[in-house]
Amino acid sequence: MPGPSRILIHEVGLRDGLQMEGRTVPTEKKLVWLRRLLRTGVDVIQVGSFVHPVKIPQMADTDRLFKEIAASDDVPEGVTLSALVLNEKGLDRGLACGVEMFCMGVSASETHSRKNTGMGIDEAAGRIIAMGLNARSAGKRVQVSVQSAFGCGYEGNVPEERVLALVRRYCEAGLKDISLADTAGHAVPDRVEQMLSAVREIDGGVTLACHFHNTYGLGLANAYAALKSGAVSFESSVAGLGGCPFTKIAGGNVCTEDLVNMFRAMGIRRDVNLDELIGVAVDMAEFFGRELPGTVYRTGTLVQTGL
Amino acid sequence: MPGPSRILIHEVGLRDGLQMEGRTVPTEKKLVWLRRLLRTGVDVIQVGSFVHPVKIPQMADTDRLFKEIAASDDVPEGVTLSALVLNEKGLDRGLACGVEMFCMGVSASETHSRKNTGMGIDEAAGRIIAMGLNARSAGKRVQVSVQSAFGCGYEGNVPEERVLALVRRYCEAGLKDISLADTAGHAVPDRVEQMLSAVREIDGGVTLACHFHNTYGLGLANAYAALKSGAVSFESSVAGLGGCPFTKIAGGNVCTEDLVNMFRAMGIRRDVNLDELIGVAVDMAEFFGRELPGTVYRTGTLVQTGL
Repeated sequence: MPGPSRILIHEVGLRDGLQMEGRTVPTEKKLVWLRRLLRTGVDVIQVGSFVHPVKIPQMADTDRLFKEIAASDDVPEGVTLSALVLNEKGLDRGLACGVEMFCMGVSASETHSRKNTGMGIDEAAGRIIAMGLNARSAGKRVQVSVQSAFGCGYEGNVPEERVLALVRRYCEAGLKDISLADTAGHAVPDRVEQMLSAVREIDGGVTLACHFHNTYGLGLANAYAALKSGAVSFESSVAGLGGCPFTKIAGGNVCTEDLVNMFRAMGIRRDVNLDELIGVAVDMAEFFGRELPGTVYRTGTLVQTGL
Repeated sequence: MPGPSRILIHEVGLRDGLQMEGRTVPTEKKLVWLRRLLRTGVDVIQVGSFVHPVKIPQMADTDRLFKEIAASDDVPEGVTLSALVLNEKGLDRGLACGVEMFCMGVSASETHSRKNTGMGIDEAAGRIIAMGLNARSAGKRVQVSVQSAFGCGYEGNVPEERVLALVRRYCEAGLKDISLADTAGHAVPDRVEQMLSAVREIDGGVTLACHFHNTYGLGLANAYAALKSGAVSFESSVAGLGGCPFTKIAGGNVCTEDLVNMFRAMGIRRDVNLDELIGVAVDMAEFFGRELPGTVYRTGTLVQTGL
């Protein structure tokens, strides 16, 4: 597992980004983007999710993408391919096609949990922990997440204690690679600092990831707060994909190249190829035929200013 | 002067925002926006600048705006009207039309200073300090700024020491209401923390303001870092005005209603009327006939999510 000395970038655009898009991306196009992303120096790339293709058609080719890429020479040493799994059937599919890292989560919002899974938080947690332990027994990396950790579109405020209770259950089960997901973009930076500090008090051995959305323009502010508070992995989407193209809510996931631009200027992860990330963002904007939420693919980078 | 217990909002859209716009805003329209802004609860409103009308035609009616508003019942108790002045002639104009607070600055970039004023930093500082003292003798509030404090479009990196040298000169002259301006949007949050901490070490009696631009999407992250580091006043533009509409660089000043949205969720300045700020932003977007850089006027606010 990574130590805190290296900040990790977990690129999730091909999953959390594309699943919001109305236009289905052909597998060949996904492979082009995936191969380019594999060469940017980001650490983990989420290829897709294992979910029923009728529910999210954009993710129907996840098994095929893994089969094409996972065992190929396209994956550089040290880069990990991840997938999101929602249930046991998805885990079986993932195990069959070469997934190295499984991401799975439970919502800290009772309403969100029931709407998404048909189960309350308690039942969902038991099931996800069992799945996580199964995946680990199969020799896989496992990251468990708390969804809606900073607020919920249905319930509004989510009490900190509900998030921490899930973190405790994960830790007791020995699942300490934990991501706090700001599913609907409700996080504000002081809350992020407070929450991360509380999580670290539960168990100093947690490897802490954060997953922010930029709904209210706070993605980078929250990422900075998380960085200061001990997060060592950041989930982000190239081009800021993940906003809902059918509404006025432009902000998707925090944008990978915007995040890397900030990190670089702070002396962090200067090895990541920002130009190549921007190249992918530009290509995605062309493919979707609209301006995407990311900033620096349009404005240029701080590197170009001499900083 | 404000103490650190209350965070101030200094709305600068009518000046730093409108001066970037190609379409001249009629005085009557500015008055409508100004009167609405005066009722939002923001603390200081920058009405315009005193600059030659040929140079920036958008600011040609600044004297008239002050004459219409300054002495009227439209200005609530406790709200201050400010103006930017660049030279002695501007100061005279401002003194003649009721300006309460004068903002003036020197760039920490030699190239930027020469291009903007024809003077190097040292000469410009002497002149601005003399102007500031004159304005104060006339009974006015004075805020002096360091422009390009976090980087420069011409020079790239601006050494911290050059910023601090200007701060020292201001403090020695007794001008301790100081703003650090990130003129081109180069600031990153860790640099902001470092710089503000260094300024406070020079003189703990400084009332510190920050002026960020959102060029690279970092405006709110920098504002958060500044808040944590002792800034007590924030200069921002309603709707995020201030980007250059002729380029792809969308980000203008950090957006007032986005900033207030963040502050509110952190329990700060919950008295500001966010809905009214958004109303002005919506009206501005309609007037200019394009989407403006601000976020929450399009996506809604965290208040609406129950947070």
